[in-house]
Amino acid sequence: MLERFFSVAKKRAEAFGHQYVELWETLESNTIGGKRFRPRMVMAAYQSLGGTDLESAACIGAAFELLHTALIVHDDVIDHDFTRRGAPNISGRYRDIAREKGASTAAAEHRGLSAAVIAGDLALFNAYRLIDSSGVTDAVRHRLIEIMDEALFASAAGELIDVDFATAIDMPRVDDILTMERLKTAVYSFESPLQAGAVLAGASQQVVDTLGDFGREIGIAYQIVDDVLGVFGEETQTGKTTIGDLREGKRTVMISYATSTEEWDSIEPLIGKHDLTEPEADRIRAVLVASGARSFANGLAQYYGNRAMARLAEPHIPEALRLELSPVADAVLGRVR
Amino acid sequence: MLERFFSVAKKRAEAFGHQYVELWETLESNTIGGKRFRPRMVMAAYQSLGGTDLESAACIGAAFELLHTALIVHDDVIDHDFTRRGAPNISGRYRDIAREKGASTAAAEHRGLSAAVIAGDLALFNAYRLIDSSGVTDAVRHRLIEIMDEALFASAAGELIDVDFATAIDMPRVDDILTMERLKTAVYSFESPLQAGAVLAGASQQVVDTLGDFGREIGIAYQIVDDVLGVFGEETQTGKTTIGDLREGKRTVMISYATSTEEWDSIEPLIGKHDLTEPEADRIRAVLVASGARSFANGLAQYYGNRAMARLAEPHIPEALRLELSPVADAVLGRVR
Repeated sequence: MLERFFSVAKKRAEAFGHQYVELWETLESNTIGGKRFRPRMVMAAYQSLGGTDLESAACIGAAFELLHTALIVHDDVIDHDFTRRGAPNISGRYRDIAREKGASTAAAEHRGLSAAVIAGDLALFNAYRLIDSSGVTDAVRHRLIEIMDEALFASAAGELIDVDFATAIDMPRVDDILTMERLKTAVYSFESPLQAGAVLAGASQQVVDTLGDFGREIGIAYQIVDDVLGVFGEETQTGKTTIGDLREGKRTVMISYATSTEEWDSIEPLIGKHDLTEPEADRIRAVLVASGARSFANGLAQYYGNRAMARLAEPHIPEALRLELSPVADAVLGRVR
Repeated sequence: MLERFFSVAKKRAEAFGHQYVELWETLESNTIGGKRFRPRMVMAAYQSLGGTDLESAACIGAAFELLHTALIVHDDVIDHDFTRRGAPNISGRYRDIAREKGASTAAAEHRGLSAAVIAGDLALFNAYRLIDSSGVTDAVRHRLIEIMDEALFASAAGELIDVDFATAIDMPRVDDILTMERLKTAVYSFESPLQAGAVLAGASQQVVDTLGDFGREIGIAYQIVDDVLGVFGEETQTGKTTIGDLREGKRTVMISYATSTEEWDSIEPLIGKHDLTEPEADRIRAVLVASGARSFANGLAQYYGNRAMARLAEPHIPEALRLELSPVADAVLGRVR
């Protein structure tokens, strides 16, 4: 579905010159290789609830994937990140091209970030447009757009809190980090796509609400696990380094918990150290284990996972949906087991 | 209409904390004080073509104003501008707050730009949403969304060309500058709002097309005049300095023309000089006059203005519409007469 969307867009861009076609190609390449979580969530809810119009469901799934692309592209602009999953992102690609043409590092980076601002805008706008052109009825379209609006509204709020964290001197509390991560990522990645699939399938409001609750709980669990894997994961499995978050001083549930323990003082100077070495990272990891921070985070993820499973057990949830989503919850938690 | 939209958004933001309400307030303040061109264009076309549902028309006008806000907010991010019309823009406001809290200049500027990326996303997404909730029929909504999509598609292409100009060593040609300015600003400011007003009024495709052509021509004229005023205008009237564009080395039709004249060598080192003095700016102005660059630009603006007026003279354009839009063209050109 996204393939078709980009094929039309690239064709259309030709009238504006090859540079514009390249921007669309770069944007498209940034939608490839991800986990396609959001389309899978839409489809899982839709099909388990008896939906058969796979074309429309794919369109809605693609819309959420494009929203995701827009948000990570702009998130990378905010973080001045030039890579994602080990490869150059949009900013990185445009920076590299400018460098090859002889631009200074500062000018090349600016060129890269500018292209990414523009590309993110195109993705964001078209996320909406994909819903609009999905061929659903007026009433369904209206509800789907409200769901996506809610997702962006929450994500922007979460991003703003995240930006505040970066400038704050004190480590945020565990619950503030949970709120930020839920708003910034979990709502649009789990809660909203599941709700959208259910609405599209014509499910009752009760089922839509419960699916939203399930998505919220499992989404929080996912974020906690993701942060633990950012320090303790296998790079071959996660596709990201296990030292980046520590160097960046990323505020996570695990790190926030650690600040409250007596072992904290021994690693505090290392957290956010830009040139952190592997032996230093190992020292941090040992303290995170010894202080109980790692197992606290895993336990909290398990708690949210259990809450998610409890929602699936509610009587108004059809068996097919339960069978479809239980493995999702297992997969999220299974990453740490 | 925008007031009502922001009032709802601010109310909704309360659930996410006062920082988020403040972001919405800041975004709203960035929609106030502009020329409200786009709503006026929508309304002019709509009412002259017999439209009477002022509520819907105001909604569509507000949608284009919000698109405009999104685009200038992100344009300022790209240009690292912290002011607009002499006052702090979103980046500027958030930078100043961070500074007061003791952040370094670099950190404070980053904070400002991050907030502006987020705010622009919210404005962009809601531009679409305002069309969706305008209460028009399916068929009209579909066409309006296509028009706005075309506007953003063009604007992103223009912005990309503009970013390329900034890193290019050679001065772009006059026609490349015209293309860039048309795509980046004229389409969404004139062409699309006029077409939207006409579609909303149920006008024939012929009228919609001609209005689009009128908007394109007058929009180009507007950009040329705007650039001339950026160097020769009265600051009290335009609200912007007449030295900023010269210091920035802004690529305009007038400057591009000047590069082809023999007087160019005498001012070339001054164009884009960050600490350009007023006497130096006066020297540039004298050369732009003596070389004929200024009158070339004014003549070109007049040419596009004449072409615009010729479109209004076409027989299928109702008299009321002609009477409404002729003064718009006069006002655009009158700024230099």
